[in-house]
Amino acid sequence: MPTPEPIRVAVVGATGYAGAELIRWLARHPHVRLTAVTSEQSAGKALADVMPSARGKVDLRLATFDPARIAGEADVAFTALPLATSAPGVATLLERGVRVVDLGADFRLRDPQEYARWYVPHPAPHLLAEAVYGLTEFCRPQLRAARLVANPGCYPTAALLALLPLLERGLIEAQGIVIDAKSGVTGAGKNVAAEYLFAEVDDNLRAYKIGVHRHTPEIEQQLRPHAGSGLSIIFVPHLLPIRRGILSTIYVRPRAGVGADAITRAFQERYAGERFVVLSPTRAPEIRDVVGTNDCALGWTLDPRSGQLVLISVIDNLGKGAAGQAIQNFNAMAGFAEPTGLDQLAVVP
Amino acid sequence: MPTPEPIRVAVVGATGYAGAELIRWLARHPHVRLTAVTSEQSAGKALADVMPSARGKVDLRLATFDPARIAGEADVAFTALPLATSAPGVATLLERGVRVVDLGADFRLRDPQEYARWYVPHPAPHLLAEAVYGLTEFCRPQLRAARLVANPGCYPTAALLALLPLLERGLIEAQGIVIDAKSGVTGAGKNVAAEYLFAEVDDNLRAYKIGVHRHTPEIEQQLRPHAGSGLSIIFVPHLLPIRRGILSTIYVRPRAGVGADAITRAFQERYAGERFVVLSPTRAPEIRDVVGTNDCALGWTLDPRSGQLVLISVIDNLGKGAAGQAIQNFNAMAGFAEPTGLDQLAVVP
Amino acid sequence: MPTPEPIRVAVVGATGYAGAELIRWLARHPHVRLTAVTSEQSAGKALADVMPSARGKVDLRLATFDPARIAGEADVAFTALPLATSAPGVATLLERGVRVVDLGADFRLRDPQEYARWYVPHPAPHLLAEAVYGLTEFCRPQLRAARLVANPGCYPTAALLALLPLLERGLIEAQGIVIDAKSGVTGAGKNVAAEYLFAEVDDNLRAYKIGVHRHTPEIEQQLRPHAGSGLSIIFVPHLLPIRRGILSTIYVRPRAGVGADAITRAFQERYAGERFVVLSPTRAPEIRDVVGTNDCALGWTLDPRSGQLVLISVIDNLGKGAAGQAIQNFNAMAGFAEPTGLDQLAVVP
Amino acid sequence: MPTPEPIRVAVVGATGYAGAELIRWLARHPHVRLTAVTSEQSAGKALADVMPSARGKVDLRLATFDPARIAGEADVAFTALPLATSAPGVATLLERGVRVVDLGADFRLRDPQEYARWYVPHPAPHLLAEAVYGLTEFCRPQLRAARLVANPGCYPTAALLALLPLLERGLIEAQGIVIDAKSGVTGAGKNVAAEYLFAEVDDNLRAYKIGVHRHTPEIEQQLRPHAGSGLSIIFVPHLLPIRRGILSTIYVRPRAGVGADAITRAFQERYAGERFVVLSPTRAPEIRDVVGTNDCALGWTLDPRSGQLVLISVIDNLGKGAAGQAIQNFNAMAGFAEPTGLDQLAVVP
Repeated sequence: MPTPEPIRVAVVGATGYAGAELIRWLARHPHVRLTAVTSEQSAGKALADVMPSARGKVDLRLATFDPARIAGEADVAFTALPLATSAPGVATLLERGVRVVDLGADFRLRDPQEYARWYVPHPAPHLLAEAVYGLTEFCRPQLRAARLVANPGCYPTAALLALLPLLERGLIEAQGIVIDAKSGVTGAGKNVAAEYLFAEVDDNLRAYKIGVHRHTPEIEQQLRPHAGSGLSIIFVPHLLPIRRGILSTIYVRPRAGVGADAITRAFQERYAGERFVVLSPTRAPEIRDVVGTNDCALGWTLDPRSGQLVLISVIDNLGKGAAGQAIQNFNAMAGFAEPTGLDQLAVVP
Repeated sequence: MPTPEPIRVAVVGATGYAGAELIRWLARHPHVRLTAVTSEQSAGKALADVMPSARGKVDLRLATFDPARIAGEADVAFTALPLATSAPGVATLLERGVRVVDLGADFRLRDPQEYARWYVPHPAPHLLAEAVYGLTEFCRPQLRAARLVANPGCYPTAALLALLPLLERGLIEAQGIVIDAKSGVTGAGKNVAAEYLFAEVDDNLRAYKIGVHRHTPEIEQQLRPHAGSGLSIIFVPHLLPIRRGILSTIYVRPRAGVGADAITRAFQERYAGERFVVLSPTRAPEIRDVVGTNDCALGWTLDPRSGQLVLISVIDNLGKGAAGQAIQNFNAMAGFAEPTGLDQLAVVP
Repeated sequence: MPTPEPIRVAVVGATGYAGAELIRWLARHPHVRLTAVTSEQSAGKALADVMPSARGKVDLRLATFDPARIAGEADVAFTALPLATSAPGVATLLERGVRVVDLGADFRLRDPQEYARWYVPHPAPHLLAEAVYGLTEFCRPQLRAARLVANPGCYPTAALLALLPLLERGLIEAQGIVIDAKSGVTGAGKNVAAEYLFAEVDDNLRAYKIGVHRHTPEIEQQLRPHAGSGLSIIFVPHLLPIRRGILSTIYVRPRAGVGADAITRAFQERYAGERFVVLSPTRAPEIRDVVGTNDCALGWTLDPRSGQLVLISVIDNLGKGAAGQAIQNFNAMAGFAEPTGLDQLAVVP
Repeated sequence: MPTPEPIRVAVVGATGYAGAELIRWLARHPHVRLTAVTSEQSAGKALADVMPSARGKVDLRLATFDPARIAGEADVAFTALPLATSAPGVATLLERGVRVVDLGADFRLRDPQEYARWYVPHPAPHLLAEAVYGLTEFCRPQLRAARLVANPGCYPTAALLALLPLLERGLIEAQGIVIDAKSGVTGAGKNVAAEYLFAEVDDNLRAYKIGVHRHTPEIEQQLRPHAGSGLSIIFVPHLLPIRRGILSTIYVRPRAGVGADAITRAFQERYAGERFVVLSPTRAPEIRDVVGTNDCALGWTLDPRSGQLVLISVIDNLGKGAAGQAIQNFNAMAGFAEPTGLDQLAVVP
C-alpha cells in the first residue's frame, strides 16, 4: 500500500493548552504535515520560542488567524479559540473548502436559542445543523463526510461515555443523575486570572458553577434522545490542584431488576473493539491511568447497601477531552485508522 | 478571675499526623501543660528531633506508651493510635483516673458487632456504652462529665455537620443521600505505602473503597435517629493530591414543599453562636478557607433544574477532623471556653 | 504588671500575600488592636469577604489607603505595597506621628542612586537615612526609637542570617560567594501573570533574573561593611512549585586554617539566645521546618573533598521573610518581648 | 530500503519508574518487539494490571528475572535494577549473547575500588573494563560494537553535558566547580520510605547527601581526563516536590580572557547537529521544557558583576537521565538513527 500524501493541517490557536497538545500529537502523526499555526498574542514569533521542545521538530512561525490565508495552506484546520470567536472564521474556512474540527463551544449545541441562553447570540447559526457532534464512538457514520466537527467538551466527553451505554439500553433511571466532576486546571484554558494562580490552586479544592456550568446543556442534549421524558441531571464541577485530567464520579439508580451483570455486559458490548475506551471492571480507574493519552477509562460499582450504581469515568481533558479526540475525529474524517498518531501509553509517573 | 492551674496533658502517638497537630495546638494553649509525648518508633528521641520547630518550645522526650506512667504524669490524654491499639491502653488510663479523648476509631461505634463487622473484634467492648461521640456541636451536655470521648472521624465530621440540621427538621429525604468526599493524604495517617508516595499521588485523583469505607457505619449511626426507617447513603471517598483538607459534596433531595429559605434558616438557627461552623450561604467554601483552623465551612445550593440540594462541607481533616475538634472537646470537658487555644485564621496562601 | 493598652495597628495592603499573613499573626497578638485594613482592589468589602476565616474574628472593612485617615486610626502601620507606591504615603504617615514598618523595597537601600539604578528614581529620598534596615538580630539597638523600619527582602533575610556571622569574624572569603536560592511563588506577591499560573508552575522549576535580581544590591549593601574590599557574590533565584518558603544553598570558601569547629562556634555564639534563628548543626534544615513560623533554620557542612563550606538557610518567605520579621521588629519598637504573638510551631504536614 | 527485522527486547525491572518509562518509549519504537518484562514483586501479573494504559498495546506477563530465559527471548536487554543486583544477571546475559544497556549504577565506575568505596564490593569486576559509559554524545564510536553499556546516572548526565564542552577546550577553571542540582522524586526510584510520602515532599524542599552523594565520583571520573590535576567539585542535590526532571545550576569561573562568546561558540560547535542537546543561549531553560522527552536543554549566563559563569542544565531524569538515553544508546548500538522512537515534544502543560 502506498504511503498516502500527507494532509496539510493548520492549528488555529496554537499557544493555548489544547492547541499545544494538538501540536504535540500532530508533530508525530505519520500522515500530517503541519503547515500553519496561529496565535493572536505571539504572532510573529517562531513556534519554538513559545514551545521550546518544538525546536528542530516543528519549524513554523506563528501568525494571526487569517482564514483566507489558512485556506491556501491547509486542507484541514483544528480551531481552538475562545468562545464565540471561532464561528466567523470557521464559516470562511468552510466556504473555501477547508474541513474543520472545532475544539471550542461554538458548534456543540444544535439549538441556537439554547446557545444564546447559556452563551451569547450565536455568530453563525446556519452552521449548527451541519456540525457533527464529535463524540467519536457515537458519531462515526457521519464523520467520513463531515465538513465541520464540533469536538465535545471535556466534561461532557467523560460523562457521556459513561452514561450513554446504560441509557441506550434503558438500564438506569434518567431522573436524579448526579455527575460530580473533578478537573485539572487546563480545563479552563490558559486563563490568566487570580483564581488560577499557583498560590490559589495548590493544596486547594473548590466546587464552582454548581448546577449552572455551560457543559450542562451539552450533556443534556446528548442524553435526552435516550432518556424519555424524565431526564434530570445535576452537574457539579470541581477544580483540582492538578494540571491535566478529569475524574467524574456519577451516581445513578439502576432500573428495577437490573443487576451488576447487565451493567457490565452493556459496557463490554457497547465498547467491544473500541481502542480508546478502556474498561476497568474490577478497579476504579485513576487520572494517572490516562494522562497523556486519548483514553477514557471506565469503572463501575453497584453498591448493595444503597442500591446506587457508581460510575467512574476518567480522561485527560487535553487528550480524549480535547486534542486527542479531535485527532481521532480527524482520522475518521480522512479515512485513517483512528489510532493513527494517537497510540501512546500514559505518562506515568 | 484567677488563672486556672494548667491541666497536665499527654499526647499518645505524638509523631503521627494528628499527634503532631495536637502538639502544634496544645503548645499554645494557655491552660495546658504538655507533660508526656509517646511514639513507638521514635521513643528515646527528643520531640524536637522529629519536629524541628518544637526546639525551644516543647522540650519533651518521646517515650513508648506506658499507660501506668502516663497516669502519673497527666490529667488528660489524647490518644491517636492505629486501629484497635488504643482500646487496651485507654482502659488502663481510665481506671487510673485519666480522662481520655481518643482520636482513633475504637470508640466511635456503639455496637460491638457493628465494630467487628467493619474492623476486628472489639478489644474493650465494656467501654463503648460510656464513650461520648464527640461531635462537639451535638454532644455538649455530655462532655462536661465525660471520662472518654470518641473523637469523630474526619469524613463523618464533615458529613454530619452538613446533614444533621436538615434531617433533624425533616427537610430532606433520608433516602438516596450521596456523599462524594475528597480528602488530602494526611487523612490516611502516616501510612508508608506505595500508594501514598509523592510520585503516585501528585497530579492524580482516585476514588477508593467505593461504598465500603469504614466511615460509612459511623455516619449511618449518627444519622439514623433522625432519619426514620428509610435511611440510605452512598459514601465515596477520593484521594486528593493535597496534604490537608476534606471537601464533601453532598447531594440530597428536599422534601416536598421545602425551599431554599427553609434550608438556610435551618443552618442559621442550628449554628447560631457556633464559633467553629462557618456558614457560607452565597459562596461555595473551599478547602483553603479552613486549612490550619478548627472550622467547618458550609455552603448550600438548591438547583432549580434538577431539584437537587447540593451541600458543600469543608474541614481541615487534622483540625475539625481530628486535633482541633479533640481540643474543642477537651475545652468543653475542662470547662474552658471552646475556642481556647483554637482561635486562628486559616494559613492562606 | 498591668496589661498594656493595646496598640492600634493598620495593615496597608491587606489583601496581598504578606498583608494577609500580617493579619493572620496580628489577629492573635495580645497587645494589638487591628483598626484599619486597606486594599485598593477590594475597598468597600468586608475583610471576611476576601479572607473567609476572618469572619467573626477580624470584623473590619477594607478601604483605600488614605494616610491621613490611617493617622487618625492607628499608632503603627505595616505597609505592604508594590514598588515605589509606599514611599509617598509613608512620608505622610510619619509626619502625622504614625510609626511605620514597611515591607516593600522602598527603604531598604540607603543610597538613592543605587535605588534608581535597580528600581526607579526614589520618591522620598529624604527618608532613606532615617530608615532602619530591620534584620532584627542585627539592628536591635536602633529599633526601640525607630520611626521607620525597612523590613528586609525575603531572599536577603535568608542569605544575611547565614553569611553575616561568618563574615563578621573573618572566617570566610568574601570573594566568590555563590547564593543559590529557591523560593515558593508567594515571594513574587499576588502577581496575576501567566508565568505564575498553576499550570505553568506545577511540576516545574526555573531559574530567573540570573545575577540581576533586585535583591542583589540589598545583600551586598549589608555584607560590604564586613567584607573588606573584595566582596563578590552571585545570586541566582529559582521559582519552586510550592507556595511558601525559601531554601538558600550558599557556597563559600573558608579562610585558610578555618575548620568546622570555628564555623559552628561562630553560629552558636552569634545566635545564642536568639529565639528565631534555629541552628541545625547535624541535619540540613528543610522548608517544612519553618512554614508558618518566624524561624530561620540554619545548617552547615564543610566538604572535605572540595574544601567548600555549604550553608543551608531556610525561612518562610511570608514569615521571617516578611510578616513575621515585621512583627518581630514591631515588638522591639514597642518594647514587647520579641516572640509576642509569634510563638508558633510549623504547620506540618 | 526494507524495513529491518524488529529487535527482540527485554525490560528487566519493568515496574520501577525507569522500567515503566522504557516500556512507554519502546512500545512505540518501530524496530523493537518487546518480548519480556520482569518484576520481582509483580511476577505473574499481566503488565497491564500494573500499568493500565498498556492494556491492548503491550500484552506481556511479568516474570521474575531469569537471565537464561531472557537469553532465549531477547536480543537486547535493558536492566533497571537496584544497586548491585544487576551485575550477576548481566554477566549471564552477556555470556549468552544478549547485549545489555544497564540503567543501574553497577557498571558506571571503571575502578572497582572506587565502586567499593562508594557502594559495596563489586559483584562482577571483570566486566568493568568492557562497559561503555553511555553518555551518548561522548561515546558514539564505542557504541556500535558495545556488548555492555553503562547508562549514566541522571545527575551526572545533566552535569557532564554542561561541563564537558568547556573543560575540553580549557575555557573554565577545574577548581571550585559548584553543582547545585534539584531533582524530582522519581530520581530516587520507587522507594517506599517515609521521606518520599506525598505529605513529606509536597510544598517542601530539602538538600541531602551534601558532598557525599554517590554520583559525585561518577561525575569526577568523567571530568578528570579534561581537568588537569586540579579538579575539585562540590555536588549538592536537592529533592523537589515534582515527579520528573532535574535542573542543575552550575557555577564555574572562566579562565582569564575567556568571554561569553567563547562559551557560546564552544557549546554551539560541540553540539552542532545533536538532536537531543537543545541550546538556549538567551533564555534559561526550565524543567517543563524537557518533561517527557530525551532532551537536555542548556543555558548559560556570564555574570559581569561577579565574573561567575552560570550554567543551567535541564533533563527529564527518566528521559535523558534514564530510559531515553538508554534507548538512544540502543539505537546507536543497533545502527538505527538515534532519534528513532524518541522523537517527541515535551508534555506541556
